[in-house]
Amino acid sequence: MFRLTVRDHIMIAHSFRGAVFGPAQRLHGATFVVDLELQRPDLDESGIVADIGLVSELLKTVLAPLDYRNLDELDEFRGRNTTTEVLAREIAEWVRARILAGALGDEAKGALHGVKVTLRESHLAWASYEARLAPA
Amino acid sequence: MFRLTVRDHIMIAHSFRGAVFGPAQRLHGATFVVDLELQRPDLDESGIVADIGLVSELLKTVLAPLDYRNLDELDEFRGRNTTTEVLAREIAEWVRARILAGALGDEAKGALHGVKVTLRESHLAWASYEARLAPA
Amino acid sequence: MFRLTVRDHIMIAHSFRGAVFGPAQRLHGATFVVDLELQRPDLDESGIVADIGLVSELLKTVLAPLDYRNLDELDEFRGRNTTTEVLAREIAEWVRARILAGALGDEAKGALHGVKVTLRESHLAWASYEARLAPA
Amino acid sequence: MFRLTVRDHIMIAHSFRGAVFGPAQRLHGATFVVDLELQRPDLDESGIVADIGLVSELLKTVLAPLDYRNLDELDEFRGRNTTTEVLAREIAEWVRARILAGALGDEAKGALHGVKVTLRESHLAWASYEARLAPA
Amino acid sequence: MFRLTVRDHIMIAHSFRGAVFGPAQRLHGATFVVDLELQRPDLDESGIVADIGLVSELLKTVLAPLDYRNLDELDEFRGRNTTTEVLAREIAEWVRARILAGALGDEAKGALHGVKVTLRESHLAWASYEARLAPA
Amino acid sequence: MFRLTVRDHIMIAHSFRGAVFGPAQRLHGATFVVDLELQRPDLDESGIVADIGLVSELLKTVLAPLDYRNLDELDEFRGRNTTTEVLAREIAEWVRARILAGALGDEAKGALHGVKVTLRESHLAWASYEARLAPA
Repeated sequence: MFRLTVRDHIMIAHSFRGAVFGPAQRLHGATFVVDLELQRPDLDESGIVADIGLVSELLKTVLAPLDYRNLDELDEFRGRNTTTEVLAREIAEWVRARILAGALGDEAKGALHGVKVTLRESHLAWASYEARLAPA
Repeated sequence: MFRLTVRDHIMIAHSFRGAVFGPAQRLHGATFVVDLELQRPDLDESGIVADIGLVSELLKTVLAPLDYRNLDELDEFRGRNTTTEVLAREIAEWVRARILAGALGDEAKGALHGVKVTLRESHLAWASYEARLAPA
Repeated sequence: MFRLTVRDHIMIAHSFRGAVFGPAQRLHGATFVVDLELQRPDLDESGIVADIGLVSELLKTVLAPLDYRNLDELDEFRGRNTTTEVLAREIAEWVRARILAGALGDEAKGALHGVKVTLRESHLAWASYEARLAPA
Repeated sequence: MFRLTVRDHIMIAHSFRGAVFGPAQRLHGATFVVDLELQRPDLDESGIVADIGLVSELLKTVLAPLDYRNLDELDEFRGRNTTTEVLAREIAEWVRARILAGALGDEAKGALHGVKVTLRESHLAWASYEARLAPA
Repeated sequence: MFRLTVRDHIMIAHSFRGAVFGPAQRLHGATFVVDLELQRPDLDESGIVADIGLVSELLKTVLAPLDYRNLDELDEFRGRNTTTEVLAREIAEWVRARILAGALGDEAKGALHGVKVTLRESHLAWASYEARLAPA
Repeated sequence: MFRLTVRDHIMIAHSFRGAVFGPAQRLHGATFVVDLELQRPDLDESGIVADIGLVSELLKTVLAPLDYRNLDELDEFRGRNTTTEVLAREIAEWVRARILAGALGDEAKGALHGVKVTLRESHLAWASYEARLAPA
């Protein structure tokens, strides 16, 4: 299996609901360093998993609505905790939808097997979500 | 699959038996930067893999008997080489036992699927051990 | 010159005033990885710049009022932008005041020459403030 | 499963063919930080995945023909793009062949299950190739 | 003193002349991770060393003529070795000239005291050049 | 000023005397990642601070007597605490002596102005010692 990863980041504010979160129930924030990994069993005829320029653009496009935002005010997260884990899944699902819509081209759309998104919230903690990318 | 990782470290002395270890047969030491990863197919109702505060405490508790120790003098390692690989497995097994004993709560105990422990011994070498966490 | 550095971090929300900040004028947030460096021309009789346990505690104490907070709501920052640079200086000044008040002991108080605080806001940008620690 | 990883690096020149590569069609270069991971379900009697000295030597031996070279001039890459993905696979295959030829000893040859090679081309992008190491 | 640093990178080919360079006399290449640090004794009225957006643009502009190039073919380096040290100085001088030409605004032009450029050629070696930025 | 840095590491055992060290009074150990920085106001005629191959060899030579050792048993440290700070100074002084004895060549010996050694004992703490390298 081949894996290709690109890195970007977002800087957001948010708060959590639930005693388990302790002081993180207060409005605070995070820099999330975001790694997007694409998985593919063999390479295309150029010798790549996907066009790294398109992959970086795709990640930036998907992150843009979150960057420099208070996630508590965004409709798509209303009533949900935007934990590192939840954000990793949301970002991965948005990436998946765009790939299936052709954002990386038709060849990659059919050939990519999986996507993994890792969010690093500090030098001491990170979380990831990995999903199959099987086209319908 | 979701994965949550927290980082801690220990500073230990030890020596190895066997010609394969060359100069590491002498008493020396290491800083091991320890990453504990928990794996889980879906999130709990708060949107997390596990309470990150409890996970960090659990890792610290498991590492405490090793930290600032000469591992050659510890009963549990008598007659065994405390290589990076062996320590990764030991720490993973101790974490597993504590999770199954309820250290992360009953919900997490039933929902976590796997645990992976990585020990970084320098900027040039590291080892990990990964195991299923299936409750009996 | 000797330098000793310890690392900690905070997760905060804030917003900036001024067109120069672009989207950072919106409420957003950051993980700041904070490095506290102490400078000293010679070592104490134990062979250290300062007790690393006390230095880590001192940094944690100084960061506590900021951690998991919306800085826009804190009195000490009213009417000021809490940029990475400003926070580096504030934290350095708080550290300096506590050292001069004896937080690291009398010997260190008289012997330390300087303090430097670096805040890393992402893998792509960081800022620091360095000041003399000359006792009155 | 146990995993052992060692790190080395190469500094190479190359160019790519295909409009998808944009400015990378020009002769340019890269530092590739190379991580070699070996996978094994249980440890040998010394408590290791493999002799880390031999593994490091093996990686260095495999990288030597690439280091400080213009890959466009090497016979083995004639007519192919030496992308990060392609190089990860080539290096992994060379490692595999040498392990099967006994470079890490007979015991390791029979016990190792997989090999993964990751090439980091910058702080923002990396790629890997992972393959089974099943002996014939 | 305040310091603000931003990071970017370039991927280049080159070769060196002189027996001291050993195998690096051959055409090879490097990824240089480039850190640009600006120094300033006090902050502007927004609380910053300089507009971080402008600083990042400035660095990207200065690096553009080098990126994805064979430095052996560039006129400005004819007859000179483009070592890590030489490139650090060149980039720093180009940054200095642009700042003095107003690239970061008039206020910053008069207030900045120094510039430092660090080029990391691998995880094992890096070099920097630091210069005063005193306006005429 | 130019600065050139190379990285290596050692893995040692030791213990400290003095209540200030708490559990570090017990025999334990550390991986020290060691950065050696050389400072020089202008470059030699090849465009370098020093021959990076010689610098790396010099660092390895200086570290060899410490690597895979219990520092408590070494004559040169008898009666002294081998703290991170003390080791940084010792290594820097050994490097200085060798440079002044010609280890990097006569040209470098006369031209280098300073040396700085940084020892990273974990991802959370490090110390350095910097000294002038003025030839007699």
